[in-house]
Amino acid sequence: MHSFKNDYSEGAHPRILKALEETNLKQTDGYGLDPYCRAAADLLRARMESDAEIHFFVGGTQANLTALAAFLRPHEAAISPSTGHINVHETGAVEATGHKVLTVPAKDGKLTPKNILPILRGHSGEHMVRPRLVYISDSTEVGTVYTKGELEALSRFCKETGLYLYLDGARLGSALTAPGSDLTLPDLARLTDAFYVGGTKNGALFGEAMAVCNPALREDFRFLMKQRGAILAKGRLLGLQFEALFRDDLYFELARHANRLAARLQDGIAELGYPLYLSSPTNQLFPLFPEETLSRLSEEFSFETMWAEENGGICIRLVTSWATPESAVDACLKTLKAIRDSN
Amino acid sequence: MHSFKNDYSEGAHPRILKALEETNLKQTDGYGLDPYCRAAADLLRARMESDAEIHFFVGGTQANLTALAAFLRPHEAAISPSTGHINVHETGAVEATGHKVLTVPAKDGKLTPKNILPILRGHSGEHMVRPRLVYISDSTEVGTVYTKGELEALSRFCKETGLYLYLDGARLGSALTAPGSDLTLPDLARLTDAFYVGGTKNGALFGEAMAVCNPALREDFRFLMKQRGAILAKGRLLGLQFEALFRDDLYFELARHANRLAARLQDGIAELGYPLYLSSPTNQLFPLFPEETLSRLSEEFSFETMWAEENGGICIRLVTSWATPESAVDACLKTLKAIRDSN
Amino acid sequence: MHSFKNDYSEGAHPRILKALEETNLKQTDGYGLDPYCRAAADLLRARMESDAEIHFFVGGTQANLTALAAFLRPHEAAISPSTGHINVHETGAVEATGHKVLTVPAKDGKLTPKNILPILRGHSGEHMVRPRLVYISDSTEVGTVYTKGELEALSRFCKETGLYLYLDGARLGSALTAPGSDLTLPDLARLTDAFYVGGTKNGALFGEAMAVCNPALREDFRFLMKQRGAILAKGRLLGLQFEALFRDDLYFELARHANRLAARLQDGIAELGYPLYLSSPTNQLFPLFPEETLSRLSEEFSFETMWAEENGGICIRLVTSWATPESAVDACLKTLKAIRDSN
Amino acid sequence: MHSFKNDYSEGAHPRILKALEETNLKQTDGYGLDPYCRAAADLLRARMESDAEIHFFVGGTQANLTALAAFLRPHEAAISPSTGHINVHETGAVEATGHKVLTVPAKDGKLTPKNILPILRGHSGEHMVRPRLVYISDSTEVGTVYTKGELEALSRFCKETGLYLYLDGARLGSALTAPGSDLTLPDLARLTDAFYVGGTKNGALFGEAMAVCNPALREDFRFLMKQRGAILAKGRLLGLQFEALFRDDLYFELARHANRLAARLQDGIAELGYPLYLSSPTNQLFPLFPEETLSRLSEEFSFETMWAEENGGICIRLVTSWATPESAVDACLKTLKAIRDSN
Repeated sequence: MHSFKNDYSEGAHPRILKALEETNLKQTDGYGLDPYCRAAADLLRARMESDAEIHFFVGGTQANLTALAAFLRPHEAAISPSTGHINVHETGAVEATGHKVLTVPAKDGKLTPKNILPILRGHSGEHMVRPRLVYISDSTEVGTVYTKGELEALSRFCKETGLYLYLDGARLGSALTAPGSDLTLPDLARLTDAFYVGGTKNGALFGEAMAVCNPALREDFRFLMKQRGAILAKGRLLGLQFEALFRDDLYFELARHANRLAARLQDGIAELGYPLYLSSPTNQLFPLFPEETLSRLSEEFSFETMWAEENGGICIRLVTSWATPESAVDACLKTLKAIRDSN
Repeated sequence: MHSFKNDYSEGAHPRILKALEETNLKQTDGYGLDPYCRAAADLLRARMESDAEIHFFVGGTQANLTALAAFLRPHEAAISPSTGHINVHETGAVEATGHKVLTVPAKDGKLTPKNILPILRGHSGEHMVRPRLVYISDSTEVGTVYTKGELEALSRFCKETGLYLYLDGARLGSALTAPGSDLTLPDLARLTDAFYVGGTKNGALFGEAMAVCNPALREDFRFLMKQRGAILAKGRLLGLQFEALFRDDLYFELARHANRLAARLQDGIAELGYPLYLSSPTNQLFPLFPEETLSRLSEEFSFETMWAEENGGICIRLVTSWATPESAVDACLKTLKAIRDSN
Repeated sequence: MHSFKNDYSEGAHPRILKALEETNLKQTDGYGLDPYCRAAADLLRARMESDAEIHFFVGGTQANLTALAAFLRPHEAAISPSTGHINVHETGAVEATGHKVLTVPAKDGKLTPKNILPILRGHSGEHMVRPRLVYISDSTEVGTVYTKGELEALSRFCKETGLYLYLDGARLGSALTAPGSDLTLPDLARLTDAFYVGGTKNGALFGEAMAVCNPALREDFRFLMKQRGAILAKGRLLGLQFEALFRDDLYFELARHANRLAARLQDGIAELGYPLYLSSPTNQLFPLFPEETLSRLSEEFSFETMWAEENGGICIRLVTSWATPESAVDACLKTLKAIRDSN
Repeated sequence: MHSFKNDYSEGAHPRILKALEETNLKQTDGYGLDPYCRAAADLLRARMESDAEIHFFVGGTQANLTALAAFLRPHEAAISPSTGHINVHETGAVEATGHKVLTVPAKDGKLTPKNILPILRGHSGEHMVRPRLVYISDSTEVGTVYTKGELEALSRFCKETGLYLYLDGARLGSALTAPGSDLTLPDLARLTDAFYVGGTKNGALFGEAMAVCNPALREDFRFLMKQRGAILAKGRLLGLQFEALFRDDLYFELARHANRLAARLQDGIAELGYPLYLSSPTNQLFPLFPEETLSRLSEEFSFETMWAEENGGICIRLVTSWATPESAVDACLKTLKAIRDSN
């Protein structure tokens, strides 16, 4: 049974395993202070055309909670789309570091100057938290992406209103390689105060590379990392993986594969006449099916159920990855067609 | 140049890399809810002769901070030797979760009913924190170990006085295989409320297996893990490694190797006439050398400098690992002898 | 210029000042361990017909943050109306203790089983916080009150779903004496897990009396109070005030006065043809006026501006207190009439 | 029975009660934004010859925890004498805001460059907290005081090593009026980054006036206050009290009274041949008595027992206040003499 549950169901791209093996008995210093991490950080900075400080994390929740704890004073709050990962799926990790998350409803999971403005207008004086950081993810939790124009507008607005702009790039590969995307790593380094490049969901065993672009946010960042248990003893494992991913653009190649298969799956579903919550250009799809269709589909494929629509349809999430075989997409569409035709 | 800086300078035992490779393209559920983690947990419970709940962490600081945050109410404090890892080397991770760490000075890094008692006597009433958990490590930060009798006495004392007993097993392999050690995994499961079995410092790429022995401490533990960023997306990596380490007692074999080489190194140093901070039965050694000796030694070997003694000697730490070659020990002793003889 | 800004613009009822004076040179133990606090607690328990533990706080934010920190484990969250004081006006005090506040929109500022249910359905598993406590205020932040039937339904729902029910009684006097109210202190003690009786906004210099009704929530509560700086050194000041307020039902008398004047003001405003955000039975009113009316009104009276309606009207808040003179209400209505007539 | 337990056993100086009464029905804005608070702040600044920002707190624990939470980033720690109030008697309030308290043993309860230096030398790198603030109290928890020379040396050291200097002035009146004291309010404003002037223990009903001298520490301080529940609704009560205390140097007059009676008591005890833990120039005394003496003394006077000495003596604390009558001191000495003579 093939799983479309997520993009971290498999191990890592073979080139990564090979790098681990080839360097296995080399001795290095711990905690990311090794030549592999230095090389990977240099490589990332070159790709970003930036002098950003680069820090490697094992996972996204850890990266988010550490960054926000480092950037915010106790009374400062983050603004997040209500669908934002920090708001919904991190068990209150940000609040556990003491900070409120203010939410903005948005069907497409994206923040804009326009939908943030009411939050700013509604907060003044010392009886309310001070909104201080805008949290966005790209691609978003509902599979959408930001254009360069959108990110520029948001970045400008943040600068004008004294907000930091932080971008969660757990699925950044998929976003940057989405058809029609005009955003690049240098854009991100230029437009955000900090962002991370997600490895876990794009071919690494694990790993997220945080770029702290704004020099004012760099001080003592590693202290915060250690305090949150976010410095890996054998940090070299992170350096090695990001070197492998970015040496020859493997990172983008893998993301393109996932996007291509997702597009094929989405197109096929639409052709079969099933509606979509929204049309996604990335590797997460949100189609809607009747309950009985899902019951039969789940005999052959696994996926995540998102929510029930009021009209009876059920939204599910289908995710492709760097490792998804074309045959799995074909088989899924074939099964869906068979289910549809049998009704 | 060989490094005796620590036991996480290399990658992982080849059997672990092999396990990763062989399973690489298998799809599993994320977050440790996969067959490999289940199998590893079963295996550990069998070795512990216990029904303990097993949770896998990537690193020790994360394990410690999550466990203490889960076990303690806000006004409750941990008692630690002043040398304890949570007190010194985790950047205030426990305090960052809101809890005070009360310290007990102890040359050998160990807690006993006798040295804890003054803390209990000195704390009463709501103007002071309530001591609630005893934190020990085995082997300790200065290389010593607990005997079964010592742990039994401590466990009994904790039960009588309403304290949880928590054991940090970052170097548990080295402790349990130390010459003369009579402690076993079943003893630990029986005598502590929770403890973890360290993988990072004994042949894994990373990984610590937390056993929550006391059923009263199990509720919602995974919520705390997620909140602290301590659930690995590809959790299977942890299950696979612990399976490899415990399937054929590889874990103990690797620890024995490190201990044996450490003993040889310690004996050699003593024979050369250099004093020791204390005689260590484990893989961390604390010899004292004149400053000029260290200056020459450091041309060929790397190590950590601990502190300067008042009489002029300097205490360093030498650590062996599962991967230390005999030749490195021989070479180190040879160099030390040459330095001594040239004076 | 009279202020309708709030109900804590004046000092305290003269009987309270008299009590302070009469006992001024008596020596007592500190921290609320004095005969006045004991007597006040006994009196409150008698009025509540309950064995609740009573703790005295200086202010409401302190009371709320301490109670929630005491009652919740780190991954547990509070559910609040989006207008709730803890959500809006405490500068993230609850989040600063580590807990997420989940919000429910409600025009009338009230929670019901029906509007809470989607929160419960939307939260499951360890990637999300666990909703654990329902926060309500009575009277609410928009001046409405709970009936006994409503509170019984909410209490039953909370018990069935494993939620604590916590009631913020900053303006409890006004709620319990509102025309038509059928709720009593014994009802509150029976139906909630904890609630507090607000003194600051009803004639005391300061002071809130927390009743912890659920025995499971009582353990070590004073430790939490001290940790949050919420034990007053001269705690007797709190005991003395609550004794004065409850010895002869002064508390209810003062609240009735405020309600009566508020009703007269609200009726007069309505008669003049101005709309209300909602009809309030308590001492906080929310009328809507054209901007130019407010500009002229503010020359003679001060008040808080709440929000601009889309149609151009502006909602303000007018608050009466135990000390509001009838003449101020008359003058306000007279001014409003003059403004209206001049247009 | 007279109590020497502490200096907050009575109410307030009559001038304070009178001020409350005279202004009772005046309406003012809440939260310390009233004319009385402004006047008191101006008065304090004039006395301090400083432009310090002044904030009023209800109590000392609240003041300490708010200031440290405001001043420190998450990985930064406070250095305190091991006897420091924040270390011992605030139920881990500072740790509950996330910060470690590093301790320095000192018989006289005082910090010096010399006894702080080992802490600085022992902390480096991101695996340890960063010492960032020096916490001292004056008078100290054992009744001693800082001279101007000592404070100047400490202040210079702190500036050179990048540490903030914070002074807890819960008993500042007693310190500044101690015989031989050469410290003044302007000195404190010049030499510390922040300090507070304690009212609770020197004649107020309650109240501590925090002076934030270092402009870099002022930003958004009131947000932190509100978040910790430390803004009093009827803030005017604090302004009124500090006005009364500082308008005619009542503050110093009251402290001098307490010191004078304490000196008389201490001299008398010494004359009777009982030893002292140390000779205190302030209103807290630490004499040592045989157990049976205390048993008889406690029939007529109450006091706090501190600790048992190894040689069998017991150290108690005797505290005088602004309200202590001479007769109580006389009676106490008489009783002690009678006990001594009967042996």
